[in-house]
Amino acid sequence: MSSVDVPVALLGYGTVGAAVSRLLEDNADDIERATGHRLRVVRALVRNLEKERDFTASPGVLTTRFEDVLEDDSIAVVAEVMGGLEPTGEYVLSLLRSGKPVVSANKQLVARRGAELFHTASEAGVQLRFEASVCAAIPVIKVLRESLVVSNVHRVLGIVNGTTNFILTEMESGAPYDEALAEAQRLGYAEADPTEDVSGADAAAKMAILATVAFGTRVELADVAYEGIESIRPEHVTAARELDTVVRLIGAATLVDGTVDVRVHPALIDRHHPLAAVEGAFNAIMLQGDAIREITLEGPGAGGIETASAVVADMVSVIGTTGTGFLQNDACWRELELLPPGELRSAFYVRVEVADRPGVLAHVAERLAAQQVSIARLTQHLLDDGAVLDIVTHEAPGGRVSAALADVATLDEVHGRPEAMRVISDRGV
Amino acid sequence: MSSVDVPVALLGYGTVGAAVSRLLEDNADDIERATGHRLRVVRALVRNLEKERDFTASPGVLTTRFEDVLEDDSIAVVAEVMGGLEPTGEYVLSLLRSGKPVVSANKQLVARRGAELFHTASEAGVQLRFEASVCAAIPVIKVLRESLVVSNVHRVLGIVNGTTNFILTEMESGAPYDEALAEAQRLGYAEADPTEDVSGADAAAKMAILATVAFGTRVELADVAYEGIESIRPEHVTAARELDTVVRLIGAATLVDGTVDVRVHPALIDRHHPLAAVEGAFNAIMLQGDAIREITLEGPGAGGIETASAVVADMVSVIGTTGTGFLQNDACWRELELLPPGELRSAFYVRVEVADRPGVLAHVAERLAAQQVSIARLTQHLLDDGAVLDIVTHEAPGGRVSAALADVATLDEVHGRPEAMRVISDRGV
Repeated sequence: MSSVDVPVALLGYGTVGAAVSRLLEDNADDIERATGHRLRVVRALVRNLEKERDFTASPGVLTTRFEDVLEDDSIAVVAEVMGGLEPTGEYVLSLLRSGKPVVSANKQLVARRGAELFHTASEAGVQLRFEASVCAAIPVIKVLRESLVVSNVHRVLGIVNGTTNFILTEMESGAPYDEALAEAQRLGYAEADPTEDVSGADAAAKMAILATVAFGTRVELADVAYEGIESIRPEHVTAARELDTVVRLIGAATLVDGTVDVRVHPALIDRHHPLAAVEGAFNAIMLQGDAIREITLEGPGAGGIETASAVVADMVSVIGTTGTGFLQNDACWRELELLPPGELRSAFYVRVEVADRPGVLAHVAERLAAQQVSIARLTQHLLDDGAVLDIVTHEAPGGRVSAALADVATLDEVHGRPEAMRVISDRGV
Repeated sequence: MSSVDVPVALLGYGTVGAAVSRLLEDNADDIERATGHRLRVVRALVRNLEKERDFTASPGVLTTRFEDVLEDDSIAVVAEVMGGLEPTGEYVLSLLRSGKPVVSANKQLVARRGAELFHTASEAGVQLRFEASVCAAIPVIKVLRESLVVSNVHRVLGIVNGTTNFILTEMESGAPYDEALAEAQRLGYAEADPTEDVSGADAAAKMAILATVAFGTRVELADVAYEGIESIRPEHVTAARELDTVVRLIGAATLVDGTVDVRVHPALIDRHHPLAAVEGAFNAIMLQGDAIREITLEGPGAGGIETASAVVADMVSVIGTTGTGFLQNDACWRELELLPPGELRSAFYVRVEVADRPGVLAHVAERLAAQQVSIARLTQHLLDDGAVLDIVTHEAPGGRVSAALADVATLDEVHGRPEAMRVISDRGV
């Protein structure tokens, strides 16, 4: 095998960029064995040439001029590891138009500007890979696009945010929400402002990308209904345990009769479901499809070196497939409608605080029945000033459950607002 | 995108072959979107042209002459789904020598003749892919070779036999071994003669392939020490539960100071370990490496359509990478020694039946200490005619634990032979 030198470039040389540079250098032999080529970073776009770096670039590699990357015809692939939407988006578009394959680690860019980016890549006949944009080193994009190409995936269920999963796991050990969040911040799993994570917004961007790839139809961030974990209290965690489930923040993308539904919300997961075993800051994605029943991928969903590892794998895959026509089309090939809000069916956990008075249970059950929501299990716990009804319903459309609960809330005997969470126990097997 | 017709061939047209044929036809559009090509089965080698098939081949496709496949220069890739070692091995070698890429679903062939096959493929400059030979649709080979190319994987832990995992899961629900085996046979998870599965031999072949790919050194089936689950009794399952673990048949491939250790054995898995959550006939493989910490892949490890799905994915990957030099080398690039038997360290669960007599515990502890095996936890249960010591040791080389137990067995107060199982609780995180 004769080795061929392949020049590559980076946009950005921060934590991830420096790690990519180091992985390419330290593992040059591994890459050469896989591809027949040695990948060498010849250019890295930075804002400040003088800044100290985790891994020093070779002399002359760092540049502040984007043109040095764009106009170098020897560059075979560019890794975008600078983040942000602008000027990053314009840079990537320019590179694709000039015929350079791009690998991106940028979740927001892919989730918000995917349509434009993939259309441009497809027009130019070059690849745009983005494994690192979702769950770092977990190779879910490659598995979806290459291993499951004939599997007709119809459902993606994921724990795609490590911060919230860590917090929920801590709460299982008895910590209240605020303490669990503070611990996540202390350990570096959560930002000082944790909103992006705990609100579900970060998970929503990842689910938009996953749904787009899995179903071949464009799902924008705005198409994803999401709620976070801010309202999860210890009593939810306790009720979950009593129902032999755990609380997890779940991203769910589902094909329903030719329409698409993508959402992020806390859910009760049956203890025997593979996602129930995902603990701490880990991520996992379950893919359900015709030929495979279900495949679950689990691993660390964040981290500089983990992200860099996925970037390098994408660069290697680009080099290994260039010129064959492989994955050079927009992953989207159809335009599916969204399932109308409220129509997605599932079992629900419902929590209603009530006055401890005869007949109240019958009144609640009537309101549920009026919306054709039937009760599968019910437990009543006495409180100091009343009682709590923990109800698990049979499968019903979310909208009917919401309507029933709005009605229940108007009952005299009901304290506060009833709460509901989806229950996930079904598998693809 | 202009579609290009790509002729492909099959060796064998049984359950898997017919499913491959059907998947290629039903999903031709998906494949064309991914690769720019339409894959069409032009030849399928069979023994009997008249036999009824699950999916009818086009007229003129079935043939009993291997030469019809070998000598057709238009054929771009051949899927070997006929099984067996001979004449399959010679067929595959001939195809590779003639410059045809091959995709194989044949675990025994890859595990036993890998060295020769991969050398031939490498010489001819063509790919030999074998995803379907290990755990059906779980894409562990692709992930190892492509996604983790720079991850320096140093440990592979797997539940790679669904039959035994089903039996062990049933035993957790209280069934004795014989009943659980009978249930597995009734459901089609176990053969009438279950030896290949329950002895650990099937898992050993898969671990040989996984270790070879993960570590880049040839691991033959003969290099894998294996034991099965025939000796697992309800009391082991109970003891496991009391130790907050579960019994699983584990394949473990480990790099230890530049040597390789590959083994298959029942083990106690910590309940928080991702592999402890794998239930029923499912398989899972955990990959631990430098850049990724750990990634776990879980799914159905057997089944005709699942296997066919992996075969088709490999065919698509071959078409998507042909001519680039990608994965056209033998995955083996070094020759590592095996770790001497008995040197692999781990914690152990030890079960000793003893007479209920003062001093017996001290005698057992002395014998363990003489081999520098230290006790982490100990429980004593009274029996009708004595007592059972359930011991968990600190990490120690397996050989020392065996030596200590041989010594313990000579004690007057000890009934029968002490038993030991490895305990797996460590993770790559």
